[in-house]
Amino acid sequence: MKTEELYKSLRLPNRSDTKLLLLVLDGIGDIAVSTTRFLTPLEAAKTPNLDELAKAAAMGRMTPVAPGITPGSGPGHLGLFGYDPLDYEVGRGVIEALGLGIELRPGDVAARANFCTLNSEGIVTDRRAGRIATEVNEVLCAKLQEIKRVGKAEVIIRPGKSHRFVIVFRAEGLEGPLTDSDPHREGTPIKKVEAAVKSSGAREAAAIVNDFYARALPLIAKEHPANGFLLRGIAHLPKIPSFQERFGLKAGAIAVYPMYKGLAQLIGMQKLEGTNSIQEEFERYLAEYGNYDYFFVHVKGTDMAGEDGDFDRKVAVIEEVDRALPVLFEKKPLVLAVTGDHSTPVPMRSHSWHPQPVMIHSPVSGSDRLDRFTETNTNRGSLGIFKSRQLIRYMMANAGLFDKFGA
Amino acid sequence: MKTEELYKSLRLPNRSDTKLLLLVLDGIGDIAVSTTRFLTPLEAAKTPNLDELAKAAAMGRMTPVAPGITPGSGPGHLGLFGYDPLDYEVGRGVIEALGLGIELRPGDVAARANFCTLNSEGIVTDRRAGRIATEVNEVLCAKLQEIKRVGKAEVIIRPGKSHRFVIVFRAEGLEGPLTDSDPHREGTPIKKVEAAVKSSGAREAAAIVNDFYARALPLIAKEHPANGFLLRGIAHLPKIPSFQERFGLKAGAIAVYPMYKGLAQLIGMQKLEGTNSIQEEFERYLAEYGNYDYFFVHVKGTDMAGEDGDFDRKVAVIEEVDRALPVLFEKKPLVLAVTGDHSTPVPMRSHSWHPQPVMIHSPVSGSDRLDRFTETNTNRGSLGIFKSRQLIRYMMANAGLFDKFGA
Repeated sequence: MKTEELYKSLRLPNRSDTKLLLLVLDGIGDIAVSTTRFLTPLEAAKTPNLDELAKAAAMGRMTPVAPGITPGSGPGHLGLFGYDPLDYEVGRGVIEALGLGIELRPGDVAARANFCTLNSEGIVTDRRAGRIATEVNEVLCAKLQEIKRVGKAEVIIRPGKSHRFVIVFRAEGLEGPLTDSDPHREGTPIKKVEAAVKSSGAREAAAIVNDFYARALPLIAKEHPANGFLLRGIAHLPKIPSFQERFGLKAGAIAVYPMYKGLAQLIGMQKLEGTNSIQEEFERYLAEYGNYDYFFVHVKGTDMAGEDGDFDRKVAVIEEVDRALPVLFEKKPLVLAVTGDHSTPVPMRSHSWHPQPVMIHSPVSGSDRLDRFTETNTNRGSLGIFKSRQLIRYMMANAGLFDKFGA
Repeated sequence: MKTEELYKSLRLPNRSDTKLLLLVLDGIGDIAVSTTRFLTPLEAAKTPNLDELAKAAAMGRMTPVAPGITPGSGPGHLGLFGYDPLDYEVGRGVIEALGLGIELRPGDVAARANFCTLNSEGIVTDRRAGRIATEVNEVLCAKLQEIKRVGKAEVIIRPGKSHRFVIVFRAEGLEGPLTDSDPHREGTPIKKVEAAVKSSGAREAAAIVNDFYARALPLIAKEHPANGFLLRGIAHLPKIPSFQERFGLKAGAIAVYPMYKGLAQLIGMQKLEGTNSIQEEFERYLAEYGNYDYFFVHVKGTDMAGEDGDFDRKVAVIEEVDRALPVLFEKKPLVLAVTGDHSTPVPMRSHSWHPQPVMIHSPVSGSDRLDRFTETNTNRGSLGIFKSRQLIRYMMANAGLFDKFGA
């Protein structure tokens, strides 16, 4: 028997109090180096509430994808949600579209786009068009959006920050990935896009993108400095089995940033909108307590502080989470997992491959007799190091959702 | 996507300062038992330089092949070099040939041989011919080497210590493995060798070996006590993808003993010859610093002391390595991994399956806040227990050689 079938065959029914909560402190894992006095933000932070949880929790570390591999947010979260990130690749364009809050449908082909400057011969002279203001970007996107359809495809354009935007091509049967139109260096013309895989859907998508270019470039030809645009990471939204289908749990997603709500929506989680702070996110959980079996709650600030190399701010975000925790405890989930989608070490100012710390707290998690939730403590926990995608199985086991295997 | 493809697709270019160094203390891992006052040699040794590294390193333990499996030097090193030892079996004859410094080519069929005593009926009466002196062995090998060719195959004979020697059969299309001619007990005759797999190359090799026997035995029939010889582990050198091809790293191998240089050469590492001590090995690294991306440095003494059950000598070799370490630090590699190819516990006087300790030191390894490189400390490290063959991936990640996966 395959392991997946085993889990399916042993699945017991949910009970009304079976609430699982995955609290993701994005990029929480860190490294202790001499410049941080060999402390990590989790170690430096004052976290009385997390400490209380830690004392009665099982701990470990998780490899998000494979040893030494640094994941983006897409693979990082798919792993947390119980999917092998190598089975379901989510392209850059798709992630960007989700980040701008576009409601993608399976099959949509999305491209990360940015305005650029072309000279009179059509040579790219500035790949970022002098990083134009967001307001200019919005005006230009509106001009391009005069194109509503290309061939059979609906065209959806959404401005981002500065010179960045997203284009989505929506039609039955389109596929990605396509090659970039971005030549990735200045002094060369925009490239024709091509199918990056052998598939008629991808060839069709490439033709539509090239037709779009032919019609769109004249619309902004007179603009300056943004008289062209480049596409990267052109990919389609893959069809992924839904979380409910796969794990039998009705899931709600609480996040401030659109990308994380989008990632949750990819696997059919319900987006619970309208929160703008950690406190509000936790309150939203309370309000929705009766409506879902599983809650994904996403905190972005830890990752942003890591990316900025800001130790004190990462500490501050952790402490903010800690202060808000009593809100969650008003209706304590049966199983609470606290972790990240990957590490974002302050000294590296980027995502990393270092396995992220995780703790699971439930009435039957047991205690690893460790007093705080830190990197070095999780090294000594009862869960060892395991693949992120197995976290959901531990959470379900803690919730009593699996029968015994064999007599 | 497969994991191997993932690593390939994310590979970033080497930089000139990207130096990876694998320092193998052969058989370093040990076990704490009552007769060693529950200390291991790593614990008992005074190692101020290793301690300094340890304080800023990530630690763990590695399973060389599979749980409970004790590896020989071949599988042990293939794992460290990033190859699954189960995918590339290197026969005993091949290892022995490498150990005697024979420059093998892919396809060579090599046999581990030893002189024996036969009675007048051709029955083996002493499988080791009374362990004749090496000088006698050399004279006998010269007699056998009067045979330069058998059929299409070139014959290469090289004496070892005491009664041991190696025979290599070199010709296009030959294959192993073959069955042993050694009956493995006295009182029976030498056995005909046969193909141990269904392959025409192996049948052809078996015929050549049997023909060799028919011509070789008469050459030493009058000798005493060594008037016969037995063959074991007859195998061909497998074709293994080169280290450079597989990992994009130009590698140099520094070892005192021929077998380890031979194992490195199997995967295309450049042998850097002429070193006779740990100090000289480390100095050779300094001299070759600019010429390679990856250095394999092999220390044999730890394993020999383990095999001899000599606790104090194992401690002494570790301390010798520690005293020489400042030489390496004159041009510190970006990533330094210290480990063994397996454990050789003093109380067992043999290789063992116990996962060997490993530490990885780099500017981004992070510190596990452990003060020494010992078995019990590595049990608490951030790397957990992993397969040896993943070590190269962690080393490459520490060197910044992988791009982020997904957005």
